[in-house]
Amino acid sequence: MIYFDSAASYPVLPEALDMLLIQSKTSYANPSSDHALGRSAAKKIDEVREQLAELIGALPSEIVFTSGATESNNLALKSVLSRQLPRGNKKHIVTSAIEHKCIIAICNYLRPCGFDITYLVPNVEGIISAEQVMNSLRSDTALVSIQHVNNELGTVNPIGEIGAACFSKGVLFHSDAAQSLGKVNVDVDEFNVDFMSFSGHKIGGPKGIGALYIRDLRTQPLEPVIHGAGQEYGMRGGTVASPLIASFGAALGLFPRLYDDFKQRGLKQYLLQQLKLKNIPSLLNGNLAAVPHCVSLSFPNTDIRLVVRENEDRLCLAQGSACSSKEIEPSHVLTAIGLNKELADKTLRISFTLDCTKDHIDVLVAALALRTTFAA
Amino acid sequence: MIYFDSAASYPVLPEALDMLLIQSKTSYANPSSDHALGRSAAKKIDEVREQLAELIGALPSEIVFTSGATESNNLALKSVLSRQLPRGNKKHIVTSAIEHKCIIAICNYLRPCGFDITYLVPNVEGIISAEQVMNSLRSDTALVSIQHVNNELGTVNPIGEIGAACFSKGVLFHSDAAQSLGKVNVDVDEFNVDFMSFSGHKIGGPKGIGALYIRDLRTQPLEPVIHGAGQEYGMRGGTVASPLIASFGAALGLFPRLYDDFKQRGLKQYLLQQLKLKNIPSLLNGNLAAVPHCVSLSFPNTDIRLVVRENEDRLCLAQGSACSSKEIEPSHVLTAIGLNKELADKTLRISFTLDCTKDHIDVLVAALALRTTFAA
Repeated sequence: MIYFDSAASYPVLPEALDMLLIQSKTSYANPSSDHALGRSAAKKIDEVREQLAELIGALPSEIVFTSGATESNNLALKSVLSRQLPRGNKKHIVTSAIEHKCIIAICNYLRPCGFDITYLVPNVEGIISAEQVMNSLRSDTALVSIQHVNNELGTVNPIGEIGAACFSKGVLFHSDAAQSLGKVNVDVDEFNVDFMSFSGHKIGGPKGIGALYIRDLRTQPLEPVIHGAGQEYGMRGGTVASPLIASFGAALGLFPRLYDDFKQRGLKQYLLQQLKLKNIPSLLNGNLAAVPHCVSLSFPNTDIRLVVRENEDRLCLAQGSACSSKEIEPSHVLTAIGLNKELADKTLRISFTLDCTKDHIDVLVAALALRTTFAA
Repeated sequence: MIYFDSAASYPVLPEALDMLLIQSKTSYANPSSDHALGRSAAKKIDEVREQLAELIGALPSEIVFTSGATESNNLALKSVLSRQLPRGNKKHIVTSAIEHKCIIAICNYLRPCGFDITYLVPNVEGIISAEQVMNSLRSDTALVSIQHVNNELGTVNPIGEIGAACFSKGVLFHSDAAQSLGKVNVDVDEFNVDFMSFSGHKIGGPKGIGALYIRDLRTQPLEPVIHGAGQEYGMRGGTVASPLIASFGAALGLFPRLYDDFKQRGLKQYLLQQLKLKNIPSLLNGNLAAVPHCVSLSFPNTDIRLVVRENEDRLCLAQGSACSSKEIEPSHVLTAIGLNKELADKTLRISFTLDCTKDHIDVLVAALALRTTFAA
C-alpha cells in the first residue's frame, strides 16, 4: 500500500516507537508522585520540555503539553478570550478563512459569546499578508490567529511579518504550527508569537500528544480548558502522559534531519515534472514555495473520483482535507482560494511520507493518466 | 523497586503494549481519512467503542474517546453547564468534598460564572449517601457529580441509589468511574447515570486515553470542550488517537480477569493482618468494603516521613494523593473525613499492582516497624 494520505500523518519513527515502548514499561508512575519512579517520569517530561523549548527559542516554563494541536489551538484561543467574558472590552478576533477546521469551530463557538470574527481571505496562492492583518486590527482586537503552514496547500505564511504587525499594535498573536515544526524554521521570538501550537504525529511522534507555547506563561492570568489537579503549571489538567511525551521528544530529535534528507530528493518537483511529461493537465493550488512534503493539485481532465476508487487497494488517496475527507462539501481552503465546486472535487491533496520514492510517484502518475481525457 | 504508588497507576499490560506497538505501525493514518488505511484505523476505534459500550451496558453511539478521565470530567460538567450560560435558570451543582481534584477545580471555575455549588460531606467512612444527595436537590439543580470509587480511600459510593434519586427528580447525574471500571461492576442503566468518566491507565492501558459515556448523546444539545473538525460525534476535536484506543481496548479485555485473580490473593487483608501481628498501630481510612487494590492507612506512632525518605530507593511510597503528593497541604479527602493535619501527615495511600506479593508487603511492614514507637 502506497501512502499518499491527505493528512500528512507520518508513521511513528522506529526510535520514537522504541521510546514509547521503553517509557511505557519503565515510566508508568504518575509524574506528579513524589517518589523515585514518579520523579523519573517527571524528569523525562522536563527533558522534552527543554528540548522543544530550545528548538523554538522559548523557555521550558513556556511549554505546556496537550493531547495535540487541536487541543493546543483550543487552549490558546479560549485561555485568552475567556478573560474577556463576560464584560471585557476586547471582543474582536482576526483569523483567516483557510485555518484548520478546529480554529473555525472555536470561532463558531465564540461568536455567540459576543466575539466579532474577521476571516481574512488569502490571495490566490493561499497566503495571508502582514498588510492584510495590519489593516484588520481594531482597538478592540484581542487576538490574531494565523497558521504558519497551511495543512492542505503547504503554503507558508509570512508569520514573522504578521507577528511584527501584531506586536506593533500590542495585539496577541497565535499561530498553529502543527504543519511547520521540524519542517521549516520556527523561532517564537523572531516570529513575535505569543502562542504557538504543535503536534506530535506530524513529525513521526505518536498520536495523542502535542504542545502549546505560551509566552511568559507564569505571569499570564490564563484560564485552562481542561481543569485539573495543577499539572502543567496549572494550565492543563490530567495525568501527564510521560511515555507519549518521551516519544514525541525522540521524534523531535530525529525528524528535522530526516526531513532534510527527504527534501533533497525533490519528490514534489518530480511529480510535477512527470505530470507535465505525461501531458496530464494539472493546476497547482498554493505556490511553489510551499513545504515539500505536501501538494494540492487539481486535475481538470481527470476523473479523480474514479482514480481514488479503483486504486484504493494500493494507493491511499483522499479528496479534500484529512479532517473532512468523508464530507461531501468542497474543502473550505480550496473554496477560499477561488476554486469552484467542480474543480475542488477534482483535487487531490497529496502528502509524501519520508520513505516515498520516485517509483511510488510513477504508480500514482500512471493511475492518473489512465483516467485522464487527453486533448485530441 | 517495589511499587506502592499512591496513584493506582498500573504498568501497561504486555498485551496492551503489543497492541500499542502494532497499531502505531499499521494504523498511523488519520481515522477520518476516507481511504483503506484511514478506514482500518476507524474500524479499530469502533471495535473498542463497542467493547467499552458492551462492558458498561451502553450504546457505542454514547461513547466519546478523550485524553483521560480528567478531560472526561471536564467534558461532562462543562458540556451540560455551558447550556445554562449566560441566562439559564439551572445554576446549582451538587458534588462531594472528596471528589478528584479536577472536579473541585472545575467547580472553582464554574462558581464565578454564576453557579452555586453544594459540596456534600461524606460520613466518617468516606461514603456519600443517596439520602444526602436527595436532600440537597433543588428546583434549580442542573447536575449531580459523585464519583463511583474514591481515588484515595477506595471506598465505593452507592451510585445506583444516588442515580435513582437523581432520576426521580429529573436531575442529570455524572459519575467519575476512573477508579472503578474493570474493578467493580459498572452498568450505566442500573446506575441511572447520564455521564460517566473512564481512564485507560487505571486498568493497564496507556496514559493519555480515556472515555466519556454520554446518555443519548445524539439527541443532546451539548457543547464540546475541545472544538475540532467534527470527530467523535462532534463532541471532541483532534485526530483520534487510534493506537492509544486500540491499546485501551486490549487492556479493557484483559484487566477484569487479572483483577479478579489479584482480588483472590487477599493482599490488603494480609497487610492489615501483618500490621496487627507486628503491633504497628494503624487506622484504616474508609471502610473494609473498599476496593482491594488500594488502602489509606494512618500510622499515629510511626514516623511516616522518615519511612518514605529512607526507603525511597526500594519502595515507591507517597504521602497524600497522587495528583497532589508534591504539595504540603493535607489531602482534601482525609480532611473531609475528619483527620487532623497531624494524622493526615502520618497517612499512606497504598495501592497494589497486579504483581504485588506477600513478600513485597513484608518489606513494607518491616520498614514501618523500624520507625514505629511501640508502647512500653
